[in-house]
Amino acid sequence: MHRERFYTLSASCPDRVGIVARVSGFISSHQGWILETALHAQPPDEDEDVGRYFMRIEIRADSLPFMLAELRERFQPIAAEFGMDWKITDSAVKKRVVILVSQQEHCLYDLLARWQSRELDVEIPCVISNHETFRGFVEWHGIPFHHVPVAPDNKTAACAEMRRIFEEARGDAMVLARYMQIISPELCAACPGRILNIHHSFLPSFVGARPYHQAWAKGVKLIGATCHYVTAELDQGPIIEQDVIRIDHSDTVADMVRYGKDIEKTVLARGLRYHLEDRVLLHGNKTIVFR
Amino acid sequence: MHRERFYTLSASCPDRVGIVARVSGFISSHQGWILETALHAQPPDEDEDVGRYFMRIEIRADSLPFMLAELRERFQPIAAEFGMDWKITDSAVKKRVVILVSQQEHCLYDLLARWQSRELDVEIPCVISNHETFRGFVEWHGIPFHHVPVAPDNKTAACAEMRRIFEEARGDAMVLARYMQIISPELCAACPGRILNIHHSFLPSFVGARPYHQAWAKGVKLIGATCHYVTAELDQGPIIEQDVIRIDHSDTVADMVRYGKDIEKTVLARGLRYHLEDRVLLHGNKTIVFR
Amino acid sequence: MHRERFYTLSASCPDRVGIVARVSGFISSHQGWILETALHAQPPDEDEDVGRYFMRIEIRADSLPFMLAELRERFQPIAAEFGMDWKITDSAVKKRVVILVSQQEHCLYDLLARWQSRELDVEIPCVISNHETFRGFVEWHGIPFHHVPVAPDNKTAACAEMRRIFEEARGDAMVLARYMQIISPELCAACPGRILNIHHSFLPSFVGARPYHQAWAKGVKLIGATCHYVTAELDQGPIIEQDVIRIDHSDTVADMVRYGKDIEKTVLARGLRYHLEDRVLLHGNKTIVFR
Amino acid sequence: MHRERFYTLSASCPDRVGIVARVSGFISSHQGWILETALHAQPPDEDEDVGRYFMRIEIRADSLPFMLAELRERFQPIAAEFGMDWKITDSAVKKRVVILVSQQEHCLYDLLARWQSRELDVEIPCVISNHETFRGFVEWHGIPFHHVPVAPDNKTAACAEMRRIFEEARGDAMVLARYMQIISPELCAACPGRILNIHHSFLPSFVGARPYHQAWAKGVKLIGATCHYVTAELDQGPIIEQDVIRIDHSDTVADMVRYGKDIEKTVLARGLRYHLEDRVLLHGNKTIVFR
Repeated sequence: MHRERFYTLSASCPDRVGIVARVSGFISSHQGWILETALHAQPPDEDEDVGRYFMRIEIRADSLPFMLAELRERFQPIAAEFGMDWKITDSAVKKRVVILVSQQEHCLYDLLARWQSRELDVEIPCVISNHETFRGFVEWHGIPFHHVPVAPDNKTAACAEMRRIFEEARGDAMVLARYMQIISPELCAACPGRILNIHHSFLPSFVGARPYHQAWAKGVKLIGATCHYVTAELDQGPIIEQDVIRIDHSDTVADMVRYGKDIEKTVLARGLRYHLEDRVLLHGNKTIVFR
Repeated sequence: MHRERFYTLSASCPDRVGIVARVSGFISSHQGWILETALHAQPPDEDEDVGRYFMRIEIRADSLPFMLAELRERFQPIAAEFGMDWKITDSAVKKRVVILVSQQEHCLYDLLARWQSRELDVEIPCVISNHETFRGFVEWHGIPFHHVPVAPDNKTAACAEMRRIFEEARGDAMVLARYMQIISPELCAACPGRILNIHHSFLPSFVGARPYHQAWAKGVKLIGATCHYVTAELDQGPIIEQDVIRIDHSDTVADMVRYGKDIEKTVLARGLRYHLEDRVLLHGNKTIVFR
Repeated sequence: MHRERFYTLSASCPDRVGIVARVSGFISSHQGWILETALHAQPPDEDEDVGRYFMRIEIRADSLPFMLAELRERFQPIAAEFGMDWKITDSAVKKRVVILVSQQEHCLYDLLARWQSRELDVEIPCVISNHETFRGFVEWHGIPFHHVPVAPDNKTAACAEMRRIFEEARGDAMVLARYMQIISPELCAACPGRILNIHHSFLPSFVGARPYHQAWAKGVKLIGATCHYVTAELDQGPIIEQDVIRIDHSDTVADMVRYGKDIEKTVLARGLRYHLEDRVLLHGNKTIVFR
Repeated sequence: MHRERFYTLSASCPDRVGIVARVSGFISSHQGWILETALHAQPPDEDEDVGRYFMRIEIRADSLPFMLAELRERFQPIAAEFGMDWKITDSAVKKRVVILVSQQEHCLYDLLARWQSRELDVEIPCVISNHETFRGFVEWHGIPFHHVPVAPDNKTAACAEMRRIFEEARGDAMVLARYMQIISPELCAACPGRILNIHHSFLPSFVGARPYHQAWAKGVKLIGATCHYVTAELDQGPIIEQDVIRIDHSDTVADMVRYGKDIEKTVLARGLRYHLEDRVLLHGNKTIVFR
């Protein structure tokens, strides 16, 4: 966490012999000091010929004899050789997180507390909401607040406006912190793998509206929450993190809503941290999460 | 657990003023010593006028001046007055549990270990299986073993035979301990609220076959198991108990199967204990579980 | 939660025949409508002759033909007959919670978010801190903030001042929301069963300072938090609620601190809710918690 | 699990640049196919100059052009260069597990069920017990059973006899499956890191005898179990795995014992699997567990 500056290389490529040797050989040839390594070989599915290899490596910045730009340049041929999807990020460059919120405070308060304490060490260039409810609270923290009203007949325009704000803010992640509106397909398509939602059920159970009511009607003994990337298909994006909490017959829907909040904020915060620390790699509609 | 003999009164009725007063007044008027009381008032649903009241009371047998038959007789007018569904059971009369198993051993070993140690203080009049696999193991424990083969063209007959064995054994509960065949509607109808199944997913997710494959394909971060009463509608009966276990991207379907077993046997054992101790009361397709 | 007004009777007394009958008979004789009942018979310890009975009953206020004062007056003879420790509270009278905080924000933000949303439906007459850090944040919420500095040579005086503020605020509960100073024996003695602390370990493990360092040194695989009543003996007061979270070898002390915060705020909020809803009854140095 | 044959290299050494590059370069230079890699860099403690590096790598056996003996021979110079503690094991050579048991069956049944299903793919050359209780059950499984009585005056001799049996059986692990006797310092010293115990508390809480009684007296809200290596200091050996389960005020010591069994057997089975798959590396009195 509060360590020396480091670069994070995250990459995936078709699996074959020699990937780790090549990458770690490159790093050590420049005396790069590895702080943390996570590797995963995903075997091929039944209809695939070759598996896929995933990696995430943290290298201490001051151990390398060159800067980030040159690191990227020098790594490029290796990436090309193995056909990698890859990126290298710099811990000294704070990620920029735009928060979307409606009228429930628990996730917003939770994220801002983490931001205040630098546990969540990011920039929050702004908060966007379809209500004015939290303007005062957000602005007290010195964070700009944008009210983008949403009505049945302006959803596409509202999403376009949010996209404009997000791009102007140079956001790295858009977090739907119990934002109760559906995101337009255009916005989803513009920011693949960058919009995170917290859904108040243990997906794939109880997709859509009023999941706690669905859970109550079904009589389940645990309820949950799911942090996932938003895609055009409602509540079907890649799952990043989930958790559950025990309930019983004496709990009403209102009780579930209350318990659920504790799970929602924790699961969202965990999923967001994994995302911001480049611990989440996509594999089709699933995620590799290097915790 | 290993206490003095007691009677367990479990009952439900339309909610109104005075139920507890009437019942506890009756008990105390005979100097009955209450060991444990659990009560639950379920408010009416939106389409109902009146809620429903559930109770479970353990009374020390030797504190009452009469035997069980007279207790039932004397309680009958109160039950009638409140329109109760009710029963009174005697801890000195061991419940009789018939176990159904196929070719997976984890739930069978687990149940027999609990039975050996008297943690599960029941009679096991027999084990039924569609395979011969566990005959030796079961018979070593001194428990009769019935092989009832199931083929695509004899399912109804096989279920009829199992029903015959269950009735002859005077079974109180039929436990599907990873029994991999579907129970006929006739058998379900003959034993409502007495057949318990362990399903290897966190229902309502992943109904039906190969739930771990479904979970793997979806990329969920937790897998679960569900103990429920068997009804004619596959995997839709009232849920008694559930639990989950964390997995991650590195876990294969085989790993999930392995982790899942630990959850399955624990959830089944818990659900069965609740059932045998008359802690489960039905309310439509849901359960009240007085743990 | 957001229900009709109700009275909560909580009581304990030596166990004997007829307690429930007498209490529920009294309530039903006045047509009192019981919303929720929890009962517990604690058997006698080895060195005791008689066990103890605990109860908590919620009665709908408008179902009774008299007001709270008369309810208490009419119940008094029954309480005397059974030798009860008892109280009756009114859901319409909000509890008053004074929060003590030092320089960590997670519990403070969490409690204020719950208060904002009325999930925590209390008055917060003031926040007290030994630092000025959160004055702005607290005052923004319209809550008075008292700075009571603590130095090695003024601890007793500081605690006396906090007691004065608490009494002036007519506080029902004093919550140490990661307040990093030891409370004086005088203050403990003045408010028995009303001061709640969140300790950042799974007590009784790692009593005292720097529990996460202790946990790291020991190599435990789970860390926890404990909400307990404060008594004069450090970290030894009755435990109200606990929970844990999994860690592994790769987690540093700083990681544990971060994970621990999520457990601390949840466990504190749960313990506080149990306390405020009169769900916690004391039994020696242990608690009965009617969840 | 049920995969192709593979070799597992597990090693630790002082941390420095180039470890992974050297090891993975060696493997890939022989076209070795890596199935799974886990790496951990432990930063130096305050009183240390250099950290320690831990690794575990699975290599498909048939991808290498030589056999295990030659692999070890060729790896030896690298290990020497980095000052490694290391070993390479072969998945085709089953580990040999000797089980010690007293009079409680839950862990024994659980381990044998896993062994029957090949989930636990080991040889069990024998079971040792200080009682005759489980001779029939063990022998029914075709496993030799040794009765080694323990009395206050023969403890050392009994442990010497168990050591003789263990060595004769060429055991890789000795598992105390709720074996209720203390192991002699001589036996501990003879098998460092090879004797696993399951302790029925969440260590370091409740060391020694009757931990559930201690937990009950303290009023904790969760109880646990700990799998650890046995050392001469009672209940102080390196912790491999832990877990907990929720209890409440209504649970007696007997209830805790019952709940605890479910945790004990699961935690023991997990810890044992980690050990047998060479996933546990020692670091002083702590463990690195590459799950």
